[in-house]
Amino acid sequence: MSQTDFSVISLASIASFDAEADVLVCGFGGAGGSAALEAAKAGARVILYERASGAGGSTGLSSCEMYLGGSGGTSLQKALGFEDSTENFIAYLEKAMGVRGDPEKIRLYAEGAADHFEWVRSLGVPYKEAVMLEREVVPLTDESLLFTGNERTLEFKDVAAPVPRGHVPSHEGDFGGRMFIDALTSAVVEAGVDVQYDSRVMHLIADEAGRVVGLVVKQDNQLRYVKASRGVVLTSGGFIMNDEMRKRYLPDNHKWATPYGNPFDMGDGIKLGQAAGGYTINMDEAFVSLPIYPPSKLTFGILVNQRGERFVNEDAYLARLAHYASLQPNQQLYLLVDADNFDHPMYIERLDVVATGDTIEELAAEAGIFPAGALEQTVAYFNQHAKQGVDPKFRKAPEWLSPLEKGPYGLLDLSFDKQTAVIMPGTKGPLTFTLGGLDTLPTGEVKRWNGGIVEGLYAAGRVTAGLPRSSEGYSSGMSVGDATFFGRIAGRQAASQ
Amino acid sequence: MSQTDFSVISLASIASFDAEADVLVCGFGGAGGSAALEAAKAGARVILYERASGAGGSTGLSSCEMYLGGSGGTSLQKALGFEDSTENFIAYLEKAMGVRGDPEKIRLYAEGAADHFEWVRSLGVPYKEAVMLEREVVPLTDESLLFTGNERTLEFKDVAAPVPRGHVPSHEGDFGGRMFIDALTSAVVEAGVDVQYDSRVMHLIADEAGRVVGLVVKQDNQLRYVKASRGVVLTSGGFIMNDEMRKRYLPDNHKWATPYGNPFDMGDGIKLGQAAGGYTINMDEAFVSLPIYPPSKLTFGILVNQRGERFVNEDAYLARLAHYASLQPNQQLYLLVDADNFDHPMYIERLDVVATGDTIEELAAEAGIFPAGALEQTVAYFNQHAKQGVDPKFRKAPEWLSPLEKGPYGLLDLSFDKQTAVIMPGTKGPLTFTLGGLDTLPTGEVKRWNGGIVEGLYAAGRVTAGLPRSSEGYSSGMSVGDATFFGRIAGRQAASQ
Repeated sequence: MSQTDFSVISLASIASFDAEADVLVCGFGGAGGSAALEAAKAGARVILYERASGAGGSTGLSSCEMYLGGSGGTSLQKALGFEDSTENFIAYLEKAMGVRGDPEKIRLYAEGAADHFEWVRSLGVPYKEAVMLEREVVPLTDESLLFTGNERTLEFKDVAAPVPRGHVPSHEGDFGGRMFIDALTSAVVEAGVDVQYDSRVMHLIADEAGRVVGLVVKQDNQLRYVKASRGVVLTSGGFIMNDEMRKRYLPDNHKWATPYGNPFDMGDGIKLGQAAGGYTINMDEAFVSLPIYPPSKLTFGILVNQRGERFVNEDAYLARLAHYASLQPNQQLYLLVDADNFDHPMYIERLDVVATGDTIEELAAEAGIFPAGALEQTVAYFNQHAKQGVDPKFRKAPEWLSPLEKGPYGLLDLSFDKQTAVIMPGTKGPLTFTLGGLDTLPTGEVKRWNGGIVEGLYAAGRVTAGLPRSSEGYSSGMSVGDATFFGRIAGRQAASQ
Repeated sequence: MSQTDFSVISLASIASFDAEADVLVCGFGGAGGSAALEAAKAGARVILYERASGAGGSTGLSSCEMYLGGSGGTSLQKALGFEDSTENFIAYLEKAMGVRGDPEKIRLYAEGAADHFEWVRSLGVPYKEAVMLEREVVPLTDESLLFTGNERTLEFKDVAAPVPRGHVPSHEGDFGGRMFIDALTSAVVEAGVDVQYDSRVMHLIADEAGRVVGLVVKQDNQLRYVKASRGVVLTSGGFIMNDEMRKRYLPDNHKWATPYGNPFDMGDGIKLGQAAGGYTINMDEAFVSLPIYPPSKLTFGILVNQRGERFVNEDAYLARLAHYASLQPNQQLYLLVDADNFDHPMYIERLDVVATGDTIEELAAEAGIFPAGALEQTVAYFNQHAKQGVDPKFRKAPEWLSPLEKGPYGLLDLSFDKQTAVIMPGTKGPLTFTLGGLDTLPTGEVKRWNGGIVEGLYAAGRVTAGLPRSSEGYSSGMSVGDATFFGRIAGRQAASQ
């Protein structure tokens, strides 16, 4: 049997175990650290395995935004004067996820997110009582609260009052995930978790009834058999770095996007869980990113496809922009801006100015991309209504409406095969990570493909299909928020068996 | 163990078998009948199980169009003066399927389709040497060859010379599938296949190495254990009738489309194959249908979304129309036609005329749907270019371009929540069936999720991800063509073990 086929090993075939604990956690990112900590605090003996030589996973590489609210507001939201009822939070999340959303996970998360924030704070992660109201991706100054989704767009305001929900450690610059992971690691170690790095989980072990009772881990090039008396928690991330899985489940995305995550987002846990009887959902959905902001003033521009037509409200969140962009012919798209609002998008490295012109006609002629008269017509319609503060076709919010009637104008090429991301220099296309994985109950129990659950097995984070289900409805902070929130629940659930 | 969990039964657990054959085929639709026939002709003892009380499956309910060509042309294409090189056929199929296509299956199919047609003829299925050149779905007169895809659209003409490839039994009216199934059934019986109806396959049986060596079938409410000395072929159809699977894999489609197929398209074979070690691909893709024709003159109209904007070349095949329609806001869409071309689409049962008007302005005002001036602008742009015989934005072919400048006009509501299909009266939304399933080699061997193949297991038809992979690239006849073509190969492959 190959060492990398992830098949289940039968308990009967094992002569003796090399180690034993109550709960075994596979993967030390945000989800795994949270699961291990909660399991240990509940009195379980816990071993936490991590394939890399240190903790962090993709959470460690992130800005550690968490999308939190509800219960009237988190302590940070309240301190800054924002009210956010649980029902308001649920309304936003349900609109965001549509038919793909899991109503039970949404409700549990919305009800518990404010408490979850207190838990994060209790680890010693610093938050500053300051809000960033700019249209930003992450504060590069030290504010800790900001709008990180589609809250202020008219379409979402129809269903939920806009509240900033992006909670980010106070920190100058991006990558606050390191601060969170360091705090979490200290807590995990202090709680007595046995953390083992350079350890790749190769197989789950199940008894005759299919209950997961241990795992096989590769350490120092040796296979070691470890018994779990209460449960195994899979928290090993998504599969965006697994080229074969990406081609299989996301053939379009594979063609034009750039994987974003840690190198071990290889889908190991998804395979382990499936082999044990789990199944996957939402495998065709991935986060993609089109950061036309900051600077926010670029939002005054209009995005058009190669037909010279708009296709989205430009004030949408970057993942929603990318989703609609991905549906345009050949993923070709352009941002038209006037001189007042012309700038270089901060998160896009290479970017061509296709054309400039004192008039739209001149610019269109120089660009030579659009059907005759198409861009001119689009701009005329946009201008006519923008002057009156409305955008009847796409409902961009009034504060971002400014008629394009004073040249010169510039046309930026944001086509997927042209743009490259600043944080992944040299790559091509929008950044992406997966949003599909094992189907789980809100408790983290892994649902069995032919009914019931896989006894003894739990999962959280991007190894599962969790709270965030689509780029169309994503907000920054949904993934780390979900991973840590449901990671904690999974850890407690495993420990309670 | 539940009788419906589709889990694999171990050979070791079976005391004695109730029956035995060389090849066991599960499902008597087009794929299963073809597989059984070829296996029997290759000398194998074959049992063919069918859950229903008679043969047919979804092929039996279809018009039995097969999408065939290549090798310079099928005998029917050639007799009618059409030339179709294998490379031309491949170019069309590759363009149609894009990144989702399986290049090996495409090539094998394109190389073998003309021979396959001779095999179908040899069963006694009648074809008439007459071509229908109208834009039609299926001939209601007795012609046997027609255009059934996107062949004559400019976008496809860029890559492949247009040739009619829809081969349909000569028959007045729809549902020629019955003729094919009757002929196939005669051949199957004559070849000595043991056909057993009212027989539901519940489990596969595998030996210690994972090789499939038999199955468990429920007959007269009894489980019977049957040994396969050479192999088991799964041909039990897709999963469009399985509400749970549809929600899991096609949540959007589940919301707005109407399942089309036979009642046993429940995904049984997909579950059996997965339990034995197979895996699925393309589960998020389904055929959907927007039959704005016949009558073909409706193609002179323009399709618009609720923004009053066009979104597709209206001369595209009905599945491509539906694909692009499904991407429009709330799946709301409208067909604007002038009085000369106004009619009721033949395959749409209920259909509201939202508005009429002597001018576009009048009609738009009466409709009260579109943003101010939006429809007027769309029509103005369309007319300006249609007069010159071009459609710069969507490239509808010149023969379908006619400026909308002579009222009165009518606006038909084709929104997914409004339209109902004539052939499924009382239902809502476009007809749909699934295009995802087990991943197989062109030989029908089922690929194992962790590498290699599942020994002893074969599959064909909609239980697999076969030739057709998307509604965007579908042509009528791709599914029955694929099912019977690869069904035959799978049957021969199983028999040769």
